[in-house]
This record gives sequence, structure tokens and C-alpha cells, in this order.
Amino acid sequence: MKVDRLITDCRLATMVPGGEPYGAIEDGAILIRDGRIVWIGTRADLPDHQATEVDRLDGRWVTPGLIDCHTHLVFGGDRSGEYERRLTGVPYTQIAREGGGIASTVRATRAATDAELTDSALDRLNALTDSGVTTVEIKSGYGLNAETELRMLRVAKGLEWASGVRVRTTFLGLHAIPPEFADQRAAYVDLMVDQILPAAQAEGLVDAVDAYLEPIAFTTEEVARLFDKARQLGLPVKLHTDQLSDGGGAALAARYQALSADHVEYISDDGVAAMAKAGVIAVLLPGAFVMLDETQLPPVQAFRDAGVPMAVATDCNPGTSPLASITLAMALACMKFRLTPEEALAGATRHAAQALGIADQVGTLAVGKAADLAVWDVTRPAELSYWLGKPLLNRRYVGGC
Amino acid sequence: MKVDRLITDCRLATMVPGGEPYGAIEDGAILIRDGRIVWIGTRADLPDHQATEVDRLDGRWVTPGLIDCHTHLVFGGDRSGEYERRLTGVPYTQIAREGGGIASTVRATRAATDAELTDSALDRLNALTDSGVTTVEIKSGYGLNAETELRMLRVAKGLEWASGVRVRTTFLGLHAIPPEFADQRAAYVDLMVDQILPAAQAEGLVDAVDAYLEPIAFTTEEVARLFDKARQLGLPVKLHTDQLSDGGGAALAARYQALSADHVEYISDDGVAAMAKAGVIAVLLPGAFVMLDETQLPPVQAFRDAGVPMAVATDCNPGTSPLASITLAMALACMKFRLTPEEALAGATRHAAQALGIADQVGTLAVGKAADLAVWDVTRPAELSYWLGKPLLNRRYVGGC
Ligand SMILES: [Zn+2]
Ligand SMILES: [Zn+2]
Repeated sequence: MKVDRLITDCRLATMVPGGEPYGAIEDGAILIRDGRIVWIGTRADLPDHQATEVDRLDGRWVTPGLIDCHTHLVFGGDRSGEYERRLTGVPYTQIAREGGGIASTVRATRAATDAELTDSALDRLNALTDSGVTTVEIKSGYGLNAETELRMLRVAKGLEWASGVRVRTTFLGLHAIPPEFADQRAAYVDLMVDQILPAAQAEGLVDAVDAYLEPIAFTTEEVARLFDKARQLGLPVKLHTDQLSDGGGAALAARYQALSADHVEYISDDGVAAMAKAGVIAVLLPGAFVMLDETQLPPVQAFRDAGVPMAVATDCNPGTSPLASITLAMALACMKFRLTPEEALAGATRHAAQALGIADQVGTLAVGKAADLAVWDVTRPAELSYWLGKPLLNRRYVGGC
Repeated sequence: MKVDRLITDCRLATMVPGGEPYGAIEDGAILIRDGRIVWIGTRADLPDHQATEVDRLDGRWVTPGLIDCHTHLVFGGDRSGEYERRLTGVPYTQIAREGGGIASTVRATRAATDAELTDSALDRLNALTDSGVTTVEIKSGYGLNAETELRMLRVAKGLEWASGVRVRTTFLGLHAIPPEFADQRAAYVDLMVDQILPAAQAEGLVDAVDAYLEPIAFTTEEVARLFDKARQLGLPVKLHTDQLSDGGGAALAARYQALSADHVEYISDDGVAAMAKAGVIAVLLPGAFVMLDETQLPPVQAFRDAGVPMAVATDCNPGTSPLASITLAMALACMKFRLTPEEALAGATRHAAQALGIADQVGTLAVGKAADLAVWDVTRPAELSYWLGKPLLNRRYVGGC
């Protein structure tokens, strides 16, 4: 068979479930054509082929390219100044009164030019790709008006060209109520649901729809309004929920067959069961957990027992998770949530792909999948979830290049 | 004046105490000759000079080169396999019975060649320098016999040439009792104190002497034996103590005018007072705190009130702190110990230099100090302690180059 590339002299963590830990193939090889894996197996079984290029990896480990399935990567400014003020003892109430918190990011994002938004996001995206990321999800939600919500999504889509990383965009209009709608919640929800989401979708900017369900954010009824519209538009949904309290969001996510419910530290037993039944992925976000000094752990054992797949993501955002390394997110998930290193890697590959609804394309090394690979300077895959702040990536391939 | 280099168009966080936060100089400049700072101030005040080289830094922030004052950087193997077994539910007692824990690192370190020890340590040191480190302390303590303790220290010294980073070596023979001395504690302490420390010192391999005081390690009497010998040899001391329980180690450190007492989560009020009186630095190690899921916080406010300077370090080691980024250590110190970003930066510059007894050479930007600088892609110094896993370093200078 004629192929574009042979990758050989490597160990494969295919992350295909059911066989060896990590779906491992010792002394493996991969054949790639037109950006896809056309053959994968042990080197001894390699079929006859003519390869334009041959990459020998000196016995290195290869995993699927990592997938960061939950980020707020596009934003103006940062909140390090506010973080510093809080650590020097300024009360959060005073910071909020002075326009801090998410409101300051909304102001900075609205004020930033497209080029500024692109440059700063690209900086963070480069950090993510240095940690092995080949697919990233990016949410809107700091514009909170028609112009800037759409601008954020356009900038996010544009990053795909600028970075060579696959980008999935998520519309998060129901992230917060902007100051100009402080006393008109219903009007704000109407605007987002009836006008801005359809406009973004018409422009091809929306791969999924998300919302923030929490007493400090939006109610079940408001989110259901949005999800009904998403269903009408044929868009899948996901949900930030049960981060600070059990708000029944997991059940709502299950009711709408959401791709994922994210955070979910405070989820109830019923919520876990509902997610399992509806096939909803639990996206664990250890960055915010650590940054906010939370103590309520997500019910990892309950997810395992119920068969709810767990994904792991950075939640990269300026307020609660300035985390720009997916391997660091994996390590924090092991240290704090007691995931095993294999679960953490599944969380940033196979399960992350499911959380984005693209498991047919990426997330494992298998015939027909995109040839998105991360090559590592490690002696075993567990090192990816063990080192803190040590660069481990040798190289990446996206679509076989 | 004739100088080798002018550094200009930059903002300086000199970390000289007493003036602006961070000892900041907006629009600063530095003149360097023979590897040292010969002038520093605002660009407007720059004296007449002829500079061989001029570096314009486009308004970037410059800090003192960062100092990691507590690492176990030289070791054989890693413990990611053991970490994975623990996370999959294998009890620690079984792992220990099967030769895991520090014993496995001792075996692997003794078995490794000098080249293997150098290569793996250099890998980790490169990660540290990527995070802005220009001076690193490296301890022995995985040899636990004459041959390998000295070999570790020689490898550590050799890293200075291989990496261009300043290295300070610390003798840590009283780290653990090796298996061959399991029933002969006294003989092991005698060997370390009477023979191996003097041999290492005679070879010029020892900048300081350290020990691990804890019920699971060595007693006050054993450590005092070692410290008496260090005093006799004219070597400063430091101490791992009060990490898992209050063992009175801070008082012991104070009695010997130690450079530092390290970990100190469980230190008593009396211990804090004794350290303050004797001028002992408290070295905070958030990596181990996070990795071991500890909850006992070091008494940061008591250290502030008593005037005990706090340093921050990675404690990079394979068992309890596989942390290879000093800025990540700073960020964890802010998140978990509630240090301010300015305290965290002082902890990896001025106070770290004090913890190594080299505050006359490095740790602040001031005339006469070595021209060890870190140049950052940040808009304010607080970003160094805010981002998690985002590379921020633009470039480093060690000795003006
Ligand atoms: Zn989020
Ligand atoms: Zn240590």
C-alpha cells in the first residue's frame, strides 16, 4: 500500500479500551495516508507499503494528541492584579464593588481588538500545544453582547489557522449577566436565546452550546430555554454545573442528552445515575478546584461505579483557573481527585473527544482516526501525570504532519 | 565608564526591600562589567558610559535570576511507576515491603553511572532554567554510602559547567538509614559524621550540611552530632524538619544558627521565635504539600509577625515533589500558603539567597551583585505567581551573559 508516512520504532498508548493498560502496543508502527491512520499495530506485523516519509522515534512513547475539552482561552487582559490584591488582603466584596471579577474581563474583552484577542490567546494556546494538545475547545462568554460574543467565536475559529490546532467552539452566552442587564435578567436571556445564538449559529461559529447553572449565575428554567433553542437548531449542549452547590444541573444535562456536565463536584447520586443513563461525560476541572482552594471532591468512585466516563481539562480562564498545560491538569487530577494516570490520560484523549462529540475523529489511535499524535520523552505513560512543570513533549503531529 | 553591557528599555523588579513594591524601577537600566552590576537605576539617570553590547528589552520586566534553594535534583530512576501503583490502590505498606519508597531511589542512584545521573539531572535542570532559575541548590542523600554520596555531589558540581547555572551543593547523608544499616543506626551516623562528611568536605564538594529530623528519620541527638562536626569543619547547616510533626527541629536549627529550616508546617510558636532570633530562613516547599495532600499549613502569618524571611523552593525529588518549575512553586505557594506574589518572588530571590548563605552575591539587583537576571513576558511581576504551566521567561543572564 502507498502511504504518506510510516511512524516506527515507538511504543503506542493507543487508549483503545478493552485490552492492555493504555491500549499499549510495544514496538509499534503506524501508517498514515491523507492525514488519517490507515494501519496500526506491532512493527512485526507491518504490511507491505511504500512510504514517502519514515519517522523513527527511538523507542519513544506515542499517545493520541491531547484534547483540552474545556477552555475559556479567548479573553482580554488578565486578572493577576486582582489576584494579587486578594492575596494582600483586599476583600472580594470590595474588588467586586470596584468592578473586578468577571465584569473586569468582560470590559477588557469588549475593549480589545481582534488582533489583541488573537495574540494573547495564541500565547496561551502555544503553552497548551507545548503540553501536547492537538485539539482545543474554546468558549465565548466574556462578550455578553452580540458584537463581542461573535467576535470571540470568530477569533477562536481563526486560531485554528494560526496555530495548526483543531478548534471546537462553544457558545456560552449564559455565562453571566452583564452590568447593562443587571435588572433585566429575562430580557438578557431572551436576547441570547432568540437572537445572538441563532446569529452565531448562522455564521457557522457554534459547535456546541454551554451555560453556567449555579445560584450565582443562571437558573434551571433559563438554561432549559437555551437548551430548547439549541435542540431546535440541531446543536449539542454541555453545562457548567454543581461546582459550588448541588443545583440539579446533572439531571438537566441528562434530560437534554448533553455531551458533558462540567465541574460536578457537588453532584448528587441521582445526578450521577442520570448522567450514566444518558451517556453524559463528566468533565473534571482540577485547576479551578486548586485555585479556589475547594475541598468538595468530585465523586470519582461513583462515576467509575456508574460507568460515567471522566474527562480532564484545564478550564483555562483568567479568574479561577489560569492553567495553560493539559499535562499539569492531568497531574492535578491524579493528585487531588485520585484519578489513576491511565484515567487522566483517557480524560485528555478518548473521553475528551466524547465530551466534544468528535470521538469518531480523534481521541484514540485507531484505523480511520485522524493522525493526531503526541510523542513523549518519558519511560512510561504514567510520567505524564506525575511531573509538575517539566516539559515532556518531544513532538506532535496534527493530521499526520 | 567602560562596561561590557548596557541593559535598557526595561522595568526592574530589583527586590531591594524598603522602597516601592518589588523594589520596582520603571524605565530602568543596568550597566554590567566583569559579570557584575556596576550601575542600576532609571534610564534618565544613566551615567556616561561606553558599552560593548546594548540589549533593549522592549519594556519587559526584569527580576533577579531565580534561585531554587532546596532540590534533590540528582537521582537515579523516577517513581512514576510507584505513584501509579499507589493511585490504583496498592497500599503503601506493600510498596515499601517490595522495596519501594526512598529505598528504590537509593538502589537506582547507586546503580546509575555518572553519565546517567548527569543526563537525567540535566533534563530537570533545563526545566528549572526554563522557569528562570540561575542558581540551584542540590543535595546528596540517595547514596547513603561513601561512594555514591560523593558521586552525587561531584555530579551536582559538574552540572554547573554543563548548564551554566550556579550550583550550591549540600551534604544530606542523614536523609535515611540504608537497608544495610537497618539494625545499626549508631554505626551509620558515626560513618556519616566521622568519615563521609569530612571526605566530601576535603574534596571541596560541600557548601552546606543538611539532615532530616523527623520521627521517621533522625533524632535531635543524631542531628546534633552531625551539626557539631559541621561547625568543626566550618560548614553552615540547614535542616528538613517539622514536615509531618512538631519535632522541635526549628529550635535545634536556631541553636546552630542554621541558614534555614525547611518544610516547617508543624513548627511551634517557640520554634518561630527561635528562628527569628537566630536569623534562620523558613524554606516553604509547596510541591510536597500538594503532592502529599497535606492540610497542615506553615504558619505564614506567624513568620511575618516574627520577621522570619520565607523562601520558596521546588524540593524537586522523585518521591514527594516531582516539581521542576520554580514559578510553579511560587504559584502553589500563593494558592496554598496564601503568600503574596511579592513574597513568593522574594522567596525565590532575596530570601533564597539568604537560605544559601550567598546573599552578598545574588538575590537582588544591586551594585556589586552578580548580573544574574531573568527577563519576562509579563505585564506585571504578579503574573509569575499566577499562571500555572505557562512559559513566561523571555531570556536569562548569568554573570552578565
Ligand atoms: Zn469553565
Ligand atoms: Zn527536601
